[in-house]
Amino acid sequence: MGVVCLNCARAYPESGVPYRCPRCGGLFDDLEPVIWHDPDPTQPGIWRYWRSLHNQGIRVSLGEGQTPLVDALVAGRRVFFKCEYANPTGSFKDRGSATLISVLSARGVVDAVEDSSGNAGASFAAYAARSGMRARVFVPDSASGLKRRQIEAYGAELVPVPGSRSDTVAAALRASEQGAVYASHAHLPFNLTGYATAAFEIVEQLSAVPGAVLAPTGQGGLLLGMARGFLGLKQAGAIDRVPKLVGVQAVACAPLAACFEIGINGLDLVTEGKTLAEGVRVRNPLRLQSVVSSVRESGGCFVTVDESDILPGRDSLARLGFYVEPTSALVWKGLQLVVEQLPDPVVVILTGSGHKWARN
Amino acid sequence: MGVVCLNCARAYPESGVPYRCPRCGGLFDDLEPVIWHDPDPTQPGIWRYWRSLHNQGIRVSLGEGQTPLVDALVAGRRVFFKCEYANPTGSFKDRGSATLISVLSARGVVDAVEDSSGNAGASFAAYAARSGMRARVFVPDSASGLKRRQIEAYGAELVPVPGSRSDTVAAALRASEQGAVYASHAHLPFNLTGYATAAFEIVEQLSAVPGAVLAPTGQGGLLLGMARGFLGLKQAGAIDRVPKLVGVQAVACAPLAACFEIGINGLDLVTEGKTLAEGVRVRNPLRLQSVVSSVRESGGCFVTVDESDILPGRDSLARLGFYVEPTSALVWKGLQLVVEQLPDPVVVILTGSGHKWARN
Repeated sequence: MGVVCLNCARAYPESGVPYRCPRCGGLFDDLEPVIWHDPDPTQPGIWRYWRSLHNQGIRVSLGEGQTPLVDALVAGRRVFFKCEYANPTGSFKDRGSATLISVLSARGVVDAVEDSSGNAGASFAAYAARSGMRARVFVPDSASGLKRRQIEAYGAELVPVPGSRSDTVAAALRASEQGAVYASHAHLPFNLTGYATAAFEIVEQLSAVPGAVLAPTGQGGLLLGMARGFLGLKQAGAIDRVPKLVGVQAVACAPLAACFEIGINGLDLVTEGKTLAEGVRVRNPLRLQSVVSSVRESGGCFVTVDESDILPGRDSLARLGFYVEPTSALVWKGLQLVVEQLPDPVVVILTGSGHKWARN
Repeated sequence: MGVVCLNCARAYPESGVPYRCPRCGGLFDDLEPVIWHDPDPTQPGIWRYWRSLHNQGIRVSLGEGQTPLVDALVAGRRVFFKCEYANPTGSFKDRGSATLISVLSARGVVDAVEDSSGNAGASFAAYAARSGMRARVFVPDSASGLKRRQIEAYGAELVPVPGSRSDTVAAALRASEQGAVYASHAHLPFNLTGYATAAFEIVEQLSAVPGAVLAPTGQGGLLLGMARGFLGLKQAGAIDRVPKLVGVQAVACAPLAACFEIGINGLDLVTEGKTLAEGVRVRNPLRLQSVVSSVRESGGCFVTVDESDILPGRDSLARLGFYVEPTSALVWKGLQLVVEQLPDPVVVILTGSGHKWARN
C-alpha cells in the first residue's frame, strides 16, 4: 500500500488503524491511481478486481458490486444509470465498506465505531456483522428512521446525536478515544479503492470509456475513488482518457461547488443548510482539495440543485423504473443542468435505494 | 412457446393476453423444463440466458438477476444464501416481471392491472413504468405502507382492497373485465421462465448442483420456475440430478404443506390466518398440484414455521449481514427444521428486502 500522511508523508503503520497520522494529525491517503489488472471472472462482485485492490488476504463480502448499468432515454438522449442501490445494504457505500472492513479485519479489529448520516452507517453495520466485529454507529438525530432501523437490525448499537452532521463526527471521535477503532469512511482511505471498482465496471459494461459520469457528492469519496479507477485504467492502456466527472451538490450545502468556482475562499460563503439530500450534507469535506482537483483534471465540474428540484427528480427517476432516495435524486436536475455540455455516453450514478426514505 | 391450457390443451393464442383459457376457463402453463443453453456472457442479468427464455424480441429490463450467492456458517454448516433482495425493486419477483412484461409489451399491451400483497405489485409497477404501460395495482388493505409507497412512486395507480388476499384477486379480476389486461403473476405462466434463471445462476455460481434449495412459498411460482430450470439443466446434461426443493410456509396459511402431507383433502384443514409473512399468505395456490409434484419429484418437502419464529429468524439473518423482510425470514427456522436431512451444498433463497417492512 502507498498510503501516507498527506501532511508529513509518514507511511501508514503496519499495525493498528489510526484514523489520522499519530505524529502530526494529518489525513492518510494514497494519491496513486488504482491500477487496472485483468479481471478474474471466477470471483464475484468487486472481487473480480482483487488484483487491483491489494487485498489478497481477508475478504469481508456480502455480494457488493457488479450492479446493473441500465440505459434510458432522457430528453431524447440515451443515458446510462449505474444502479448502486442494488448493493447489499442498498447503497454504493458497500463497495467501500467491503474494502475498509477487510483491512480492519485483517488488522484484528474487534470493536469499531463509525459516524454516518445513514447509508454509510448501515453499510458499516452490515459488514461489521459479517466479520463478527462489535459496531457502534453515531447518527444525526435527524437521520431517517428507516436507516436507523436497518443499522440496528444488523446488531449494531445506534447512538443518535443532536445537532448537525459535524456534531455527529465529534461524538464518534470522542467515543474512539476510549479504545474502539474509528472506522471512518471519511477519514480512512481504504474505502476509496472499493469505489474505484465502480469505474472498472462502467468501462467493462459499456465496453467503452464514458464521456461523463455524474454523482451526488458529499465528502466526494465516490468521485475520488472513481477518478483513481479511471486513471488506473488509463495508465494500464485500457482507456485513452478519463471521463468528465460531475459532482452534484445541494444548494443548501455545496462546499465543493464553491471551492471549484471561487477557490478556497469560497468556503466562507457555504452554509450547512437543511436539505432533503441528507446523505451529502457535508460542510467540510475532508479531501476537498483532492476531490476538486480530480474533477478539474477530468474536465468536469460541480453543479448545485435547489431543494424544490429534489423530489420531482425522485419522481421522474421512479417513473423510469429507478427507485432512489432524495440524495440520489439530486442527479436528475443536475443532469439537466449540464447534459448539453457532456459528451456521450453519459453515466449517472444512482447511489442509494428509495427504500431508505419515507416522506413524512 | 409450449404454453397450453392445463384443462383442454388449447394452445395459448398468438395475440392478446388472456389470463385463463377463453374456451374453458382453465389455467395456462408450459410444463416443460426450461432448457439450458450456453449462456451469453455479453448480456446482463437474466438475459445472459436469453437463449433459454424464448424471448428474442422485446426485453423489458431494469437489471434483474445475477444476484449474489453469499455463504455463511449456520450451526457449523456452510450454507449459501441467494440474495434476491438485491434485485431492482428489492425482490425475486423482478425476474418474473422482466419476462412477463416483455411478453405483454411484445403483444402491444398498454393498460394492465395486477393484484399483489406487495412485492409483485411493486415489481409489476416498475416494469410497467419501464415499458411505458399504464398500470393499476390492487393490494390488500393490510399491505405494508412502504410497499404501497414504492408502487405509487413508479407512477402506478394503487387501489387498496379491504378483506383478504383472495378479495384482492377478485377486485383485480373485476377491473380486468373492463378492458385492461390482467397481468397476473399467479395466473399467467410467463414469469415462471424468469424464475428458472435463479436455478441457472445458482449452478453457475456454485460450479455444482446444490443438494437442496429452500425458499418461502406462497403461490409456489419461484419453486416451480426453479424446478423447471434445474430440469432443463439436467436434460441438457449440465447437471446429473435435481436438488431437493424445500418450500417453507407459515403455519397460519400452509396449503401446499397440507396437500403434500395429507393429500388434496388436507386443504379443508387450511386457514387463511393472519401472518407476518404476508407475501406467502395464499390460501388457494393456483398451481398447487404442479408445485407439490415438483417438490415431491425432487425428493424435497414442505415445512411450516410458527409466527413466533419469524422475527427471531429475521434478526438472526440480519446479524449475518442479510437484511430481509419477515416473509423471507421464514427460511431461517425452516432451515433449522430440515437441515440435518439435506445434502450439501444447501442454498437458501432470500426473496425480499428488509427495507420493505417496518415493525409497527
